[in-house]
Amino acid sequence: MAGFLLAQDLEIDADRRQTQQRQTGPPETRPEQVAARTKHLTAEQMAKAQKEISVSEFFAKNRHLLGFDNPRKSLLTTIKEAVDNSLDACEEGGILPDLTIEIHQIEEDRFRVVIEDNGPGIVRAQIPNIFGKLLYGSKFHSRRQSRGQQGIGISAAGLYGQMTTGKGPTIISKTKRSKAHHFQIQLDSSKNKPVITKDEELAEWHQKQGTRFEIGLEAHYKRGLRSADDYIKQTAVSNPHARISYLAPGMQEARVYERAVKDVPERADEIKPHPYGVELGELMKMLRATNSRWLSGFLQEEFCRVGPKVAKEIIKTAGLSERSYPSRIAREEADSLYRAIQKTKISAPPTTCLSPIGEELIREGLMKECDADFYAVATRPPSVYRGNPFQIEVGIAWSRPGEERLDVDAKGHISKTRKKRGTYDTENLLGNADDPVRLLRFANRVPLLSQQSGCGFTKSVLATAWKNYGLSQSRGALPVGSAVILIHMASVWVPFTSEAKEAIAPYPEILKEVKLALQEAGRKLGMHIRKGKKVASEFQKRNYIEQYLPHVGIGLQEILGISDEDRFELVETLQEAMETSRKI
Amino acid sequence: MAGFLLAQDLEIDADRRQTQQRQTGPPETRPEQVAARTKHLTAEQMAKAQKEISVSEFFAKNRHLLGFDNPRKSLLTTIKEAVDNSLDACEEGGILPDLTIEIHQIEEDRFRVVIEDNGPGIVRAQIPNIFGKLLYGSKFHSRRQSRGQQGIGISAAGLYGQMTTGKGPTIISKTKRSKAHHFQIQLDSSKNKPVITKDEELAEWHQKQGTRFEIGLEAHYKRGLRSADDYIKQTAVSNPHARISYLAPGMQEARVYERAVKDVPERADEIKPHPYGVELGELMKMLRATNSRWLSGFLQEEFCRVGPKVAKEIIKTAGLSERSYPSRIAREEADSLYRAIQKTKISAPPTTCLSPIGEELIREGLMKECDADFYAVATRPPSVYRGNPFQIEVGIAWSRPGEERLDVDAKGHISKTRKKRGTYDTENLLGNADDPVRLLRFANRVPLLSQQSGCGFTKSVLATAWKNYGLSQSRGALPVGSAVILIHMASVWVPFTSEAKEAIAPYPEILKEVKLALQEAGRKLGMHIRKGKKVASEFQKRNYIEQYLPHVGIGLQEILGISDEDRFELVETLQEAMETSRKI
Repeated sequence: MAGFLLAQDLEIDADRRQTQQRQTGPPETRPEQVAARTKHLTAEQMAKAQKEISVSEFFAKNRHLLGFDNPRKSLLTTIKEAVDNSLDACEEGGILPDLTIEIHQIEEDRFRVVIEDNGPGIVRAQIPNIFGKLLYGSKFHSRRQSRGQQGIGISAAGLYGQMTTGKGPTIISKTKRSKAHHFQIQLDSSKNKPVITKDEELAEWHQKQGTRFEIGLEAHYKRGLRSADDYIKQTAVSNPHARISYLAPGMQEARVYERAVKDVPERADEIKPHPYGVELGELMKMLRATNSRWLSGFLQEEFCRVGPKVAKEIIKTAGLSERSYPSRIAREEADSLYRAIQKTKISAPPTTCLSPIGEELIREGLMKECDADFYAVATRPPSVYRGNPFQIEVGIAWSRPGEERLDVDAKGHISKTRKKRGTYDTENLLGNADDPVRLLRFANRVPLLSQQSGCGFTKSVLATAWKNYGLSQSRGALPVGSAVILIHMASVWVPFTSEAKEAIAPYPEILKEVKLALQEAGRKLGMHIRKGKKVASEFQKRNYIEQYLPHVGIGLQEILGISDEDRFELVETLQEAMETSRKI
Repeated sequence: MAGFLLAQDLEIDADRRQTQQRQTGPPETRPEQVAARTKHLTAEQMAKAQKEISVSEFFAKNRHLLGFDNPRKSLLTTIKEAVDNSLDACEEGGILPDLTIEIHQIEEDRFRVVIEDNGPGIVRAQIPNIFGKLLYGSKFHSRRQSRGQQGIGISAAGLYGQMTTGKGPTIISKTKRSKAHHFQIQLDSSKNKPVITKDEELAEWHQKQGTRFEIGLEAHYKRGLRSADDYIKQTAVSNPHARISYLAPGMQEARVYERAVKDVPERADEIKPHPYGVELGELMKMLRATNSRWLSGFLQEEFCRVGPKVAKEIIKTAGLSERSYPSRIAREEADSLYRAIQKTKISAPPTTCLSPIGEELIREGLMKECDADFYAVATRPPSVYRGNPFQIEVGIAWSRPGEERLDVDAKGHISKTRKKRGTYDTENLLGNADDPVRLLRFANRVPLLSQQSGCGFTKSVLATAWKNYGLSQSRGALPVGSAVILIHMASVWVPFTSEAKEAIAPYPEILKEVKLALQEAGRKLGMHIRKGKKVASEFQKRNYIEQYLPHVGIGLQEILGISDEDRFELVETLQEAMETSRKI
């Protein structure tokens, strides 16, 4: 230790010498002052440094937590946050989304991103806060499925743009009832407040309603996996009701993902908290805040799935009175109430707050984007973690390996040739037969592109025994095959592992549901692969027999002394018998 | 889609029917109201739901982000946050830490945790905010190495305790100059403010100065990897200057980790930001806030490593004047200044802000906790990521495999027997020879126990070719062996992947430094293993020869007709010659 510190001290001295040498400059150009090594602090000295940290400062310094780790990912995150907001707004307004996404390269490392939607627009007074204040929004407290949930994303994109280019976002928004408003804002990160630098009403705007978000940022545009392109494509898969026009650097014209269906997903219901999902502290807070006069009413009015019978049972188990005043319940009584809730059987929360993609659309989405031989989809019934309803959907697309493969059509006809597969790209999601399968992860219809290894979904895929379903798999690795596994979680509250919303926290209930769905789809895949193998071996056998059958005919002709005609007939009969006996 | 929605609708109807059935109860016990499926919202309706989200509410709902995923981890995180604060306070006060940590089981799932230190204490006015307000502290804005950096940890522990037991933390703190103060606080999570429920001065306290933090919480205590026990043990390894007394459920008496060294680690210096680490937005903010009258002075006073010469060069490259008023610099000029900074060669930031553990102490720590055959340590020179200085230290402890192993002491003597190894535990950190090596990760002396697979350190370990250094390794996996790899990052700002501070974000500069350090230590290990293999094969040969030597003697005796005495002498001479020729 002593030796080490000595070396450090020498280094400090070297620093100081350097500083002293520099301090020969004129006073107005006084060189840096290396802060003196303050030896020890007292409690009073330490107290002076204590202060509040604004949430914007916090996230500005920790911007990798929000998905702004590096220029490439920052571009993706910016687009993602704006698109999520646009799709949510359209859904809330019952509008078929029509999105325009543009990425323009301004300088080598600077880009301008524009996202415009035809949603219901934002009322003027809310625009600065929504885009210029972190932790501001409508979705955090609502118990309903939506893409956004934190009130951080879009303002963080603005903050990042401002940090890297000095300029905040520009917003144009028009509601049905008002004229379009044009805002330019700067984010005051020390106070987490928007500063309006431009606020004007536009006489004309080309849309009846909608919102346009524009920001300049330091970024890097690159195609391929986990790119903005990839994100847009996957968004089109999970949102077939949206029309998306996408223009990126190097494209001659915008690529348009057309709508595959014309129904807006039903706006999910908002539900009350489920008793099982509320902790003691929260319960005490609710007791203090309720308008209910009696404990029994409180339980029924503030929670879902609590009727008079359940309320009575809870209160009896807790040893309390139905007519207690909620606001006067002490901590110990609240604790009894909490314990009683855990002991009482209460039905699962309603699932009308969920809006899954649906088996048909998952299959369609996969068929559109993967040129596969087989598709399997599985949907689990809704389940609950920490009181939050959620539902898991899984889809698998699979292609038989090999350049020369056997394909069996609906009528059992077998063909042998098939086009070669390439390595996977954003055009065809299927990879090579000897590569790991590609995993597509979605949460509330939003593609999750990063942090695959840290995601609960991945854990479930790794924990599934894919060998049972005909795919090879090393221990602790993804299965291998020319296949895509799609996993979607619909929930009122998705437990992401970070604010960047890239991976799902491994709650046991979620892991279990994902695994069950994977097994269900896996069994279907396994049946298909085994059947395929059987067909292939039958084909092989038949091939052999077809080759030898004429020789058998000749042999029999010689032995039995029959005519050529009889021989042909015999061979034909044998062939037919074989056809019939082969069962596919 | 249509089919799916139909099924959903049926489910909703079922829900509604259920509700209607329930609504036959008396009015004061009116059953739950399933919120009607509000069809579509207008911008005006949506605006009403928009509101600010308090940072406490945000983290309460996202408590897994802070390390409170499950009862077991919550116990660990609570202890970790309190211990980090205690060790930081002692270091700042120049005090040799003397920590008492107690875990008491109150009910099956409720525990009471007490952490007491002999640090400088906290002045009365600061206690409620430090323990009852998220994003409050002294370390966030300081550019100096410390364990805490966010101002979230300890208040989050209090918040979690309150959420799960209804009761906030109790704090006693005494500074040298004041009497001990006893506080009980509740956290108002809607406002992110502490509510003081008890505030009294104690006439007597058993310490001259120090702080005692106590909280009840829902938790689960279990020994083994990633347990509180494991954390305390690893903390003792990386903080050999601390004395830690640790009492956990099931222990007869407290386990005491005694101090191994008597020097308090030097309090790291605070440094000014390095020009390379400041983005355009931040630069503009600094220009507005500075007291410097001229641009040249601004650059030298607000940044480290900028003297008159460098300032002049930057300003010239930017095409600005040294006498410009910083506060009047427009965005475009600031952009030129920013670009000019990137183009100018500026020396790396001073490293006096870092306080690495040191090679000697890493070796000592490993020797204390691993019963290994070989230890290698490597320290990299300080480096910089995003303007933040950091330094990587690596240690490896390794044991030769096999139950019967060869051990060579300093004099080259070889012994054959050695005690069997068990699976790894918290007592001896070394594992079995055919298991993956154990990775110990530290950031600013704090052990990182969770999220190993998502950690940048792990990525670097996986990316190192361990086969070159004598360890077997599958592609993409940890090397295999009875070994421990310790990695420590000392930095003014550790880029954690989440607020729970469990894993390091994979900044390329950090990955590179870790890999270089691993390679350096790995080379030492490889040399040792190769030497060991040579010794082993020599030993094997010698074994054979020793077995046959007497027979050779007998043969020679027969051929040459010499006496028994001569034969013994001959065999001895042969043996000696062999000893000498063997080179270790």
